[in-house]
Amino acid sequence: MDGLQAVRYTRGRLLVLDQLRLPHEYDEVQTSEEAFDTIRSMRVRGAPAIAIVATLALAVELVNQDFSSATVVSQQDYINQKLDYLQGSRPTAVDLTNAISLLKQVIAHAGQSSTEAATVREAYIKAAEKILQDDLTTNLAIGHYGAEYLRRQQSPLDIVDEVGCFTTSSSGERTALGEGDRKMSVLTHCNTGALATSGHGTALGIIRTLHNMDYLEHAFCTETRPYNQGSRLTAFELVYENIPATLITDSMAGALFAQRKEEKNISAVIVGADRVARNGDTANKIGTYGLAVLANYHGIKFIVAAPTTSIDLETASGEDIQIEFRARHELTQISGAVVEADGMVNTSKKARVAIAEQRIDVWNPAFDVTPYRLIDAIITEKGEVVRSKTGTFDFEAIMPERWAAQPEKKAHERI
Amino acid sequence: MDGLQAVRYTRGRLLVLDQLRLPHEYDEVQTSEEAFDTIRSMRVRGAPAIAIVATLALAVELVNQDFSSATVVSQQDYINQKLDYLQGSRPTAVDLTNAISLLKQVIAHAGQSSTEAATVREAYIKAAEKILQDDLTTNLAIGHYGAEYLRRQQSPLDIVDEVGCFTTSSSGERTALGEGDRKMSVLTHCNTGALATSGHGTALGIIRTLHNMDYLEHAFCTETRPYNQGSRLTAFELVYENIPATLITDSMAGALFAQRKEEKNISAVIVGADRVARNGDTANKIGTYGLAVLANYHGIKFIVAAPTTSIDLETASGEDIQIEFRARHELTQISGAVVEADGMVNTSKKARVAIAEQRIDVWNPAFDVTPYRLIDAIITEKGEVVRSKTGTFDFEAIMPERWAAQPEKKAHERI
Repeated sequence: MDGLQAVRYTRGRLLVLDQLRLPHEYDEVQTSEEAFDTIRSMRVRGAPAIAIVATLALAVELVNQDFSSATVVSQQDYINQKLDYLQGSRPTAVDLTNAISLLKQVIAHAGQSSTEAATVREAYIKAAEKILQDDLTTNLAIGHYGAEYLRRQQSPLDIVDEVGCFTTSSSGERTALGEGDRKMSVLTHCNTGALATSGHGTALGIIRTLHNMDYLEHAFCTETRPYNQGSRLTAFELVYENIPATLITDSMAGALFAQRKEEKNISAVIVGADRVARNGDTANKIGTYGLAVLANYHGIKFIVAAPTTSIDLETASGEDIQIEFRARHELTQISGAVVEADGMVNTSKKARVAIAEQRIDVWNPAFDVTPYRLIDAIITEKGEVVRSKTGTFDFEAIMPERWAAQPEKKAHERI
Repeated sequence: MDGLQAVRYTRGRLLVLDQLRLPHEYDEVQTSEEAFDTIRSMRVRGAPAIAIVATLALAVELVNQDFSSATVVSQQDYINQKLDYLQGSRPTAVDLTNAISLLKQVIAHAGQSSTEAATVREAYIKAAEKILQDDLTTNLAIGHYGAEYLRRQQSPLDIVDEVGCFTTSSSGERTALGEGDRKMSVLTHCNTGALATSGHGTALGIIRTLHNMDYLEHAFCTETRPYNQGSRLTAFELVYENIPATLITDSMAGALFAQRKEEKNISAVIVGADRVARNGDTANKIGTYGLAVLANYHGIKFIVAAPTTSIDLETASGEDIQIEFRARHELTQISGAVVEADGMVNTSKKARVAIAEQRIDVWNPAFDVTPYRLIDAIITEKGEVVRSKTGTFDFEAIMPERWAAQPEKKAHERI
């Protein structure tokens, strides 16, 4: 795994990039308590990354501390208690909840077939390492499918449009630009990169893969108000990896498309997803919906990059997705490292400044919902799901078991 | 003139609101030199307000200082020198250039018909006072025409749609909501209010008038990145005048329309203009274009408020409008009053903080161009010009003389 990593792990040793002290300060995390503190203090963020840091910190403890006198039961109790404790570091993080639930099953099962505490420990460690590995594999697959899907859009005579609503990409042997291919530029929103995951990222993972394959002309990123994940984190990742990139305010996307679509071959807006409903409606960082409308107006593809775990078949449409509203001070104040009188940024000195009339009422939804009809394709680790001519996303094709297991199973809902 | 005023003037006395020390710090400006300093230090901004402060400061000097020994010629020289000096306070401000050119003609003319220096002084003072008065009159007229135009949109059976491309509003006797009328909500962008003009404002002037007429349900304002004129100035004006109002980030406009259009009867986006081309294409603060696309998508009226002096018949379309690109630090850093540890804003202590990766490339156009086809009406002090069914704006109807005087006079260009 080349490139930027939020987490560096070898058995017995976990290093976590401190996102409050970018560019490159890694902290060693040796215990569950240190992981808890790292998560609570926002030194690590992003749902997949949080789950990985929490569960691997406990794996490191199990490797390095002395459990020679443990029994199967005492070892299971120890692990279960630590997992319950770690859950409290970010109670709303779904990936962490899912990981904890999986690991509890793993050690329960290991304890049934062995009388050795070491077997329980080894089962835990292997499962935690697999979570890390699976996340990486998922992101790399999303990057691959997304890049191949976008490359095919550059050749309008390609067969992709004939295939229907679901295609899996070619084997990826094609690593150079073909005849007649033109490099493309893309816009992304928020941060969906290595800093939010085990590495590579989802939407930003596609951009990384495009760059690695030499298909990328230029990446544009929005600053992503109010929390500026785009200007702080995505911009950092792009600079770090020398990907040709430019920052704009959220309000400049329209002008960018109108003025520079042809010049830069701006071909897609690529975003992540907090949740994808069964009909394809996608909840993502506030501002995503406006970008989708602008992309549609300008004939630019609008692509959602998400692991299948973010596709929620229980939720029929975006109307059923609850939107979180956040604090007023996110709009009226902002924090950052102080710029000294000489123009240098003093990263050891933070300040919070007022950027608005303090008495004004604010409306601050954290997410918005982009309706399925504005989305061209949803890229998962199992391939891309392309919006069909009738406007549907055939999720059954990439996850037939989950589709079949729906409590209230519905045939393809043709809307 | 009730409400917020950037400028308070009585003959011999000029008070200017210090926009760096809002809410209500007025400085007395007694000389041209003080006016120059006030403009250069950004304590006053907005093209009309700058012209008013510069020219009235000299009027105050002429009232209060002793010119008893002046001749007509020495008085003219004095005024012309001061005007040339004041021009340097903001060389690119068109309103200031126009005002100076007008005042030079006025004193040249006054000197021809009199041998008294006092006559020259009096002519200057009266003309400078008329610039202030005319700006106020213009803004109040824009407010009136805009509010009446929008009110009529609430009654779909009104005759407005039959009238064609140009209408002047009714006499304004109608000051209460009619039967079947519903109060409306609007969104505005940037600052076009009392702080940028002699008072009342253009786009924000329409909102003030809607509020005064009790037609306004709610005003929404964008923060207007990167300079935050919306969150700093417009929000301040709205709070100051107790107009029900809410701040959003630029990126939230789409979600606002999608989620709250019906609830709040969001009926229009109202913006100002830096320049309107002959075909109606409008250059305005960056982000305006994106709002126009979103308004169009959601069936919300998109309204430009501008004095006829902003309509540039020499410029055929938006393609001919030069766009200014601004400094990278506007996107990567921001300044504001420091928020102390106790949460209180310390207005006497400013800081600049980093809000982005400092090495990222940025694209920072100050303006964008909204094409005429996305604009429903342009509201001027001479009435509203409504986009006709064929997509044209009939500016000849509101300014027949200027239209006739075009060097390369064109018949109505039906596009």
